[in-house]
Amino acid sequence: MGKDFYGDLQLGVLGGGQLGRMLIQEAINYNVNVHILDPDKNAPCRKLCNRFECGSLSDFETVYNFGKDLDMITIEIEKVNVDALEKLEEEGVLVYPQSRIIRLIQDKGLQKQFFKQNDIPTSAFQLISTKENLKNTNLTIPYIQKLRKDGYDGKGVKKINTVDDLETAFDEPSLIEEWVDFEKEIAVIVARNDDGDVATFPMVEMEFNPEANLVEFLIAPSTYGFDIQQRAEELAKKIANDLQIVGLLAVEMFLTKDGEILVNELAPRTHNSGHQTIEGNYVSQFAQHLRAIFNLPLGDTRCRTNAVMINLLGEEGYEGLAKYEGVEEILAMEGVYVHLYGKKFTKPFRKMGHVCIINDDRELAISNARKVQEILKVKA
Amino acid sequence: MGKDFYGDLQLGVLGGGQLGRMLIQEAINYNVNVHILDPDKNAPCRKLCNRFECGSLSDFETVYNFGKDLDMITIEIEKVNVDALEKLEEEGVLVYPQSRIIRLIQDKGLQKQFFKQNDIPTSAFQLISTKENLKNTNLTIPYIQKLRKDGYDGKGVKKINTVDDLETAFDEPSLIEEWVDFEKEIAVIVARNDDGDVATFPMVEMEFNPEANLVEFLIAPSTYGFDIQQRAEELAKKIANDLQIVGLLAVEMFLTKDGEILVNELAPRTHNSGHQTIEGNYVSQFAQHLRAIFNLPLGDTRCRTNAVMINLLGEEGYEGLAKYEGVEEILAMEGVYVHLYGKKFTKPFRKMGHVCIINDDRELAISNARKVQEILKVKA
Repeated sequence: MGKDFYGDLQLGVLGGGQLGRMLIQEAINYNVNVHILDPDKNAPCRKLCNRFECGSLSDFETVYNFGKDLDMITIEIEKVNVDALEKLEEEGVLVYPQSRIIRLIQDKGLQKQFFKQNDIPTSAFQLISTKENLKNTNLTIPYIQKLRKDGYDGKGVKKINTVDDLETAFDEPSLIEEWVDFEKEIAVIVARNDDGDVATFPMVEMEFNPEANLVEFLIAPSTYGFDIQQRAEELAKKIANDLQIVGLLAVEMFLTKDGEILVNELAPRTHNSGHQTIEGNYVSQFAQHLRAIFNLPLGDTRCRTNAVMINLLGEEGYEGLAKYEGVEEILAMEGVYVHLYGKKFTKPFRKMGHVCIINDDRELAISNARKVQEILKVKA
Repeated sequence: MGKDFYGDLQLGVLGGGQLGRMLIQEAINYNVNVHILDPDKNAPCRKLCNRFECGSLSDFETVYNFGKDLDMITIEIEKVNVDALEKLEEEGVLVYPQSRIIRLIQDKGLQKQFFKQNDIPTSAFQLISTKENLKNTNLTIPYIQKLRKDGYDGKGVKKINTVDDLETAFDEPSLIEEWVDFEKEIAVIVARNDDGDVATFPMVEMEFNPEANLVEFLIAPSTYGFDIQQRAEELAKKIANDLQIVGLLAVEMFLTKDGEILVNELAPRTHNSGHQTIEGNYVSQFAQHLRAIFNLPLGDTRCRTNAVMINLLGEEGYEGLAKYEGVEEILAMEGVYVHLYGKKFTKPFRKMGHVCIINDDRELAISNARKVQEILKVKA
């Protein structure tokens, strides 16, 4: 990197939500000048960066013009205009993760084919163009239908449980995947820098809110056996190397009931399944992402203690100006860290913040997290 | 507090330097809207707040106008216009620390008298108006002369070692203090909220750079016996209670060679002697200050491990656009955390950042800190 990047470097981030916000909290330590592009004029990062530009992430001209005078660009969301990033890369702007990786991951069909080509264990699948194709698929019901593009946080995903559900199936290019009757959803965040150094955070266990289809509860480190953790972490490293990614990669996996690990999806960025690293690990995922994209030595990913992360979701039945209940009460508890995302408006299941609960006693961390979940509410 | 302060609260900070910057890094977690007033248009906080105003901290109108529409004001430097703060308090703006405390602490003479009135152990002293008074002081040489007002980071402080030094003594209202032949400089940071809850961080040991007269090396927790630590912490609590302060108070003390503790100076704000709490403790001094001024339950001040903090000072002989040497190398070391302050220009001994070094092995933390000190340089 030609510049002395502690002070001079102009870093663009596509997306100005909570991930960008927590990245800024860390980037401050390195004097990085952060530029944010986000379509929402009230985006969580709007007042915390050198330049905030309100504009579309999917428009070629907007993304290209935003990036053309910057040194480096990263993302906090995959749904961005990749053609613009490709052109910026050609013109010498560093884009991490690389545009080809974003393009691959944007399409759940290509992602799945990538797994297959690289011997990465994943569930059986098929790609279809219209729902007509579902009539002669090889997969047996139940299965999952995912739109190949633009799905996010559970949107664009349907479970087909019965023949009747075929009627309401998406009529668009989709991926269908065999239903995995998993024992646990697990995730590993891996980082790779341009020198090729690779490091994984310890595997975490996730619990989803089935209604919202969001991670709402996450525990690290895992108590599964060393063998399982090692396999999950090796798999994440293999994928980072196969992709030759620069930056962070979140690898979401299923641990099946017979101990097999199947890769579900990738996110080439900081991820909800790594928020507990801020208090729980020696280096946070945000610090690690910066180290990776700046080609610095990767940090120490070990856990400092047990950490449970819960998402703070907008309460059902409330929409409007956000009001927070119970913050004072949970701050009286030991080892509780609140992260609000600066979102003005709440709606049901919107991610409004998260809370990290740490404790050297794992069971206490979990029971404290359950208490926090009962006490803390976002209403309107 | 009438408002739901997670989102609505408008917090003004007088001063936009590194303390304000680290406070913002924490305030982001609570959706606090931060307004900064600083005379330097390149102040470290300038791009990280809701509103940045460039203006004098000592001008009545500037401070008053800055604060009049805010809910709460805090400081990161004592040298501010207290009359304006008093008027703002009268008009209902919450000022923490309270204006009367800032007024007291601005004047090292009043501060010393406060110690005396409240039976707080401190070195023998005398207040003088001109250097003429030095001819018939009761104190014997060597002693320290400190300007009553506007001293900062060693400025406005002189040691009178010989009768000849009397010639060059300050000819202004001063405090003269008996020279304390101390064993160690120690500090305790204490927090008090409006409910009257009081909590101290564990006592830290400081090593000064005698040339720059700045803390350059700090170790927590201390290895002095429980008795000493307890006395230091109780003293800090007593002072916080005597002052009825709301917010953080740094209490700098001398541990004398016969085990006596003498209070040296107070700073009613976050302090250089608490930077290691970010990585070293369960709650950082910045989080604790926010908890205190928002009247939230105070956080867990315990150390998570051994932490050494070193100030990163501008290298002697260099002045101009700052360049950082050795960042990459120190980031390859275990347990090393870099905090750069976003200052464009360096000059000799300017505080450009700090580094925190943590390790479960205290000796290793110290030796790693010494390595960092050798490697990391700010030049121009």
